[in-house]
Amino acid sequence: MKNFNPVRGTYDYMPREAKTREMVRQTILSSYQNNGFNLIDTPILEHIEYLSNDTGDNQKLMFKTIKRRDKLDLTKDNLTEADIVAEGLRYDLTVPLARFYANNRDKLPTIFKSIQIGQAFRAERPQRGRNRQFTQCDIDIFGDNTVNAELELLKTSIETLNKLGFSSLVVRINSREVLNSVCGYAGFKDEEIKSVCVTLDKIDKISITGVMMELIEKGFDTDNINRLIDALNEILDKGITSLEKYGVDIDTINRLSYLINSLDKLTGESCEIKFDISIVRGQGYYTGTVYEIYTDGFTGAIVGGGRYDKMVGKITGTDTSAVGCSIGFEPVCMLLLERGARFNSLYNLALIYDSTDDINQVYDVKEKLKSKYNVSLFVRPKNMKSFYEKIVTVADCVTSVREYIEGKDIKLLK
Amino acid sequence: MKNFNPVRGTYDYMPREAKTREMVRQTILSSYQNNGFNLIDTPILEHIEYLSNDTGDNQKLMFKTIKRRDKLDLTKDNLTEADIVAEGLRYDLTVPLARFYANNRDKLPTIFKSIQIGQAFRAERPQRGRNRQFTQCDIDIFGDNTVNAELELLKTSIETLNKLGFSSLVVRINSREVLNSVCGYAGFKDEEIKSVCVTLDKIDKISITGVMMELIEKGFDTDNINRLIDALNEILDKGITSLEKYGVDIDTINRLSYLINSLDKLTGESCEIKFDISIVRGQGYYTGTVYEIYTDGFTGAIVGGGRYDKMVGKITGTDTSAVGCSIGFEPVCMLLLERGARFNSLYNLALIYDSTDDINQVYDVKEKLKSKYNVSLFVRPKNMKSFYEKIVTVADCVTSVREYIEGKDIKLLK
Repeated sequence: MKNFNPVRGTYDYMPREAKTREMVRQTILSSYQNNGFNLIDTPILEHIEYLSNDTGDNQKLMFKTIKRRDKLDLTKDNLTEADIVAEGLRYDLTVPLARFYANNRDKLPTIFKSIQIGQAFRAERPQRGRNRQFTQCDIDIFGDNTVNAELELLKTSIETLNKLGFSSLVVRINSREVLNSVCGYAGFKDEEIKSVCVTLDKIDKISITGVMMELIEKGFDTDNINRLIDALNEILDKGITSLEKYGVDIDTINRLSYLINSLDKLTGESCEIKFDISIVRGQGYYTGTVYEIYTDGFTGAIVGGGRYDKMVGKITGTDTSAVGCSIGFEPVCMLLLERGARFNSLYNLALIYDSTDDINQVYDVKEKLKSKYNVSLFVRPKNMKSFYEKIVTVADCVTSVREYIEGKDIKLLK
Repeated sequence: MKNFNPVRGTYDYMPREAKTREMVRQTILSSYQNNGFNLIDTPILEHIEYLSNDTGDNQKLMFKTIKRRDKLDLTKDNLTEADIVAEGLRYDLTVPLARFYANNRDKLPTIFKSIQIGQAFRAERPQRGRNRQFTQCDIDIFGDNTVNAELELLKTSIETLNKLGFSSLVVRINSREVLNSVCGYAGFKDEEIKSVCVTLDKIDKISITGVMMELIEKGFDTDNINRLIDALNEILDKGITSLEKYGVDIDTINRLSYLINSLDKLTGESCEIKFDISIVRGQGYYTGTVYEIYTDGFTGAIVGGGRYDKMVGKITGTDTSAVGCSIGFEPVCMLLLERGARFNSLYNLALIYDSTDDINQVYDVKEKLKSKYNVSLFVRPKNMKSFYEKIVTVADCVTSVREYIEGKDIKLLK
């Protein structure tokens, strides 16, 4: 028996899944647009040079394409990967966005608010929720260094999640400046902070004791660890007001307070906004505010993002204020499919005709039904039982041309 | 100056282009769905084995990905491409559809009507209208060997083109069986017919004299050429009724007549349906009916498709009736952008606020305007002139929080 499965780590989507995914896509897009962001589109194929600028782990997971025709010389001595690579498949939408902005900035407004909904690729070890091809839904604001940019992104994301049916939300906000200051106050050197933060990120899973143990295992100075744990305990207890004594500058504190208070006022009671020192975010390029949004019944974040003011500069040579926010399309679709979410779309109707029916009359009935249903024609099958068994995968209800003309009710299939 | 252009043969889409492309996508999708087709989705990465099954030229244009980690051994002697290739990027949506059908057929109804809207890749020599990454919008019917399948695909495509604003359409229908019979009648051998058809395909551009000249140049037997030209002249003159004397079987003639007559009755006067012996279609896998749809002001076809009953069997080992139709998304978008088509979507409004405004009031005004506009916030810029110059790329009209509260009219930008 031949294997017809898709390529490892990728998926075929059946009608019900594909329809839900499409409704999620359209809901996110129209909400983003209604909040003043502009759809753009960039290619899946991207220059290796720009994809290799990332300081994170994503470039290790990059899919690369092979040079074509004369450009591929496999007889060369001491062949290296660089000799055979043509382009890369993008592993996120942020690198292409930075290149897009560099390429078109003279045509764009000083403050540019973009939407990108597209596919990215990472050669992850396949596991639940780690697809090698996945959809990302990003909004980004370029050229605005005020915290109103973060406010806009988070307000828009919360509204979008509400429209998707997620009502009980927790927004956790932190800042790289806070992490750097507190780690610095505790005595960690600049080059140690990344590793400390990787551990800190796990506080939810391993608790503060676990964080301490892991830092000891990593061999960091015990005095530094103790100072950090004391600081964390106080910050976890007293929140944002305790930050100043740990060397966080007042401007950062004010920005965070303004963001949290404003967002709290602008969102409903079902949304909790809080400062959370344990929010780190994985990628290497964040420089300021970082945030995640959580919902009931799912342990991971369903939204993540932050400020990355240095990233565009790595490509263009000129730093540009940049801040982004991304709804996790794949977990959102997974949750909605599990919950059996139904979007406000037309029912699919199977309309059965007989091979002896006049085809004009068949289409006449189809046309009449199309304002209320998506109408799919099927010639009357020989075996009605097996027809009904399988038609449920694509249809919600069924009638026949004859039954419709006779005024009979349309039958629901499930 | 660094080059920030996208990868050769691919494109960045600016807000106006991306918005139009999205509206075209949604219009096509909802029309396909309303006519009873079901959206599915397949991965961009596909097994090399299946992509290499195509008898056409597409596989020569395939992008291939490089093996990863330990699997890539560049030190091997006599290295060939097969040693370094992992997967391919699909060059159409038909190969993945056949694999999808093979993988899921026990869960799908006997007659399955699919929609695929997705991206495909071909390493074409870059030129206008030949993108290396492009979107395809396909509908296909599997498991229906009657000509009602062709009727449904063409009726749906015509309705979709009408919804996109294309009203003056010509549908040209032919059949591979007709081409084979007429060429066979003229004396050409089976293995010569492909080359004869490639020439015949150019009849629109080079006229029947040009076809004759090219066939002579290709070195075919003169008697065969003369018999073919005589036959073509009669068929071009008298149409479908003259086919029987050239060995076309009566069943094929009846199917074509039924399709043309039924479609003619089901479509409006602005749509002309005709038999056309010169419709060949490029791809290698068609076995029966082939068709194209043309519109005023564009020389190429904007829709193409046909029956390919042998293609699924090449992958699964079991032949399956299959017929498809594809709207040319890229030329359709190009034509609509050139014509400045406007879809029925909300206007984009730039809402200016002052940094001294209360942010709650700013958002209050934004919320009020959002039912009528897509509302984008901008802090009042220092240089209003340069702001207006560039804001037109993303906004249709502008107001400020103050002006709105004072009840002033919203200003159109263009």
